[in-house]
Amino acid sequence: MELSAIYELVQEDLDKVEDRLRSVSQVDFPHLSELLDYSLRSSGKRIRPALALLAGKFYDYNLDYLLTMATAVEVMHTATLIHDDVIDNSPVRRGRPTVYELWGVGKAVLLGDYMFAEAGALIATTQNLRAIKLFASTLKTLSSGELNQAFYAFNLEQSRSQYFQRVTQKTASLFSMATESAAALSQAPEESIQILIEYGHNLGIAFQIVDDILDFIGTEEELGKPIGSDLAQGTLTLPAILLLEYYPKDNPVRRFFSNRDEPDNIKRAIELVRNSSIIQECYQVASDYGAKACRNLKLLPDNASRQSLIQLADYLIRRKR
Amino acid sequence: MELSAIYELVQEDLDKVEDRLRSVSQVDFPHLSELLDYSLRSSGKRIRPALALLAGKFYDYNLDYLLTMATAVEVMHTATLIHDDVIDNSPVRRGRPTVYELWGVGKAVLLGDYMFAEAGALIATTQNLRAIKLFASTLKTLSSGELNQAFYAFNLEQSRSQYFQRVTQKTASLFSMATESAAALSQAPEESIQILIEYGHNLGIAFQIVDDILDFIGTEEELGKPIGSDLAQGTLTLPAILLLEYYPKDNPVRRFFSNRDEPDNIKRAIELVRNSSIIQECYQVASDYGAKACRNLKLLPDNASRQSLIQLADYLIRRKR
Repeated sequence: MELSAIYELVQEDLDKVEDRLRSVSQVDFPHLSELLDYSLRSSGKRIRPALALLAGKFYDYNLDYLLTMATAVEVMHTATLIHDDVIDNSPVRRGRPTVYELWGVGKAVLLGDYMFAEAGALIATTQNLRAIKLFASTLKTLSSGELNQAFYAFNLEQSRSQYFQRVTQKTASLFSMATESAAALSQAPEESIQILIEYGHNLGIAFQIVDDILDFIGTEEELGKPIGSDLAQGTLTLPAILLLEYYPKDNPVRRFFSNRDEPDNIKRAIELVRNSSIIQECYQVASDYGAKACRNLKLLPDNASRQSLIQLADYLIRRKR
Repeated sequence: MELSAIYELVQEDLDKVEDRLRSVSQVDFPHLSELLDYSLRSSGKRIRPALALLAGKFYDYNLDYLLTMATAVEVMHTATLIHDDVIDNSPVRRGRPTVYELWGVGKAVLLGDYMFAEAGALIATTQNLRAIKLFASTLKTLSSGELNQAFYAFNLEQSRSQYFQRVTQKTASLFSMATESAAALSQAPEESIQILIEYGHNLGIAFQIVDDILDFIGTEEELGKPIGSDLAQGTLTLPAILLLEYYPKDNPVRRFFSNRDEPDNIKRAIELVRNSSIIQECYQVASDYGAKACRNLKLLPDNASRQSLIQLADYLIRRKR
């Protein structure tokens, strides 16, 4: 199933989110305007705005607030990507030069700061204290997760549970923020909010596992960036952790982490992962999280949005980019 | 008059702010805890928290909310300094190595992000929508001001009015946020809030002008960082703008901006400024803003805090560090 078919129910409103993202770029200061426009005009899948809109469909669909929240979540997500690219010295993302590459460290840092603030300002207009507090706590969680990744770079002593904790912090937190705040803004009862938090949380973990798989089995063309970039950054993801478990004594990940002057070991690690059952095993874990995400959706009102959320989970596991 | 005497009225509560800043560092993740502790344990003057507490003294002094706001403002300020040091590649601040120097770009960026979020989370606990919105808009303003500075680095075509606009954005906005939010949290009537905004705004401009003067006439020992660092970053401050006005054709600033391989021109510019009436002129401008800050304070209730605010303005203009 294509993403466009899954989004059909909210496509019109997603187009309005695009309009609002364009409005974010319309500021008095032309240099800032250019940076915002460059960053927010993107070939991204807009998963987080779609999540917010779909999760808002079960009770009182307050279009204005949901559009605001959907826009804010995408602005916040984009800001994290801009800072990530600074941290990783990444020249390319989604097939385009990064802000870091084109404008340098300083402007990329400040643009990200501005966009975090813009996201906060947007959410504040909903006047919903739960959404406002959730925004701040999610940004704390996200940056803690990224800091954890930075502090454990090139460290081989990392368990699966550390991996899942980090993925929860750096990815799932934003997914569940989108669903929780949308549910709260649409006056969902607390039990339904909890089901949508559970959905966002588990979907986010599944999404990140697939992202981490694609960094091993994708192509540079599909991903819009070099493959193996997690290993190159010293980040151990689930496939690499399994590889270390399969070959505990000697393996190319271990060799690369102890001697970064031999990047050929990244290629060897990719080959080794591809020619093992690791990928299949990782997909199984991702599917389990996808199933867990959808498990309690049946307790929500039976509507087309519920079906879209189930299809979205399926799509995000099968995607190639 | 010593700062301790000016702070006397709120010293006990400023000590409580220190306790709260220490609590901010107490997180589960030891690496993050260390970074927070290093950043927030500082020899800074805590001007912004003092401003918040003093500005909150005129009506209903809600200690808990004011302590929260005072803490949040200092956390936010510290976050901007951490990002500034990344942007400027600064190895030293207040006589200590910066987070950037000790932990590198990535961790400094993420720590700043975390601290912006922490500031937002603290302010959200006041449940005051005006303060919450003001926080987000101030962070937008601050980062716009810094971006403006980054885009105009090493650009000689900058007017005094651009300078004042930038100073308003990058410094005065946080001062007036401290006074406005404190006034709002203490249930001040709108006219009084406006007077305290005016105070914070003009005080912030005066403060930044003095900062910019000290970068020419201070000593490295007093400032805790090399003098001439604004010029070294390509930032035109008021003394440099006046120097360009005094010597429009040829001068060391012009020479350094067109050839950065000759840093001796920074020393020459400093000498030239010190041996002219530029410093005196800049102090006059700073004093005028200081007077403007205090102009309408007499319309506030007559209490000890009013006197402290006037003394603080005087102190900030006379300070040597």
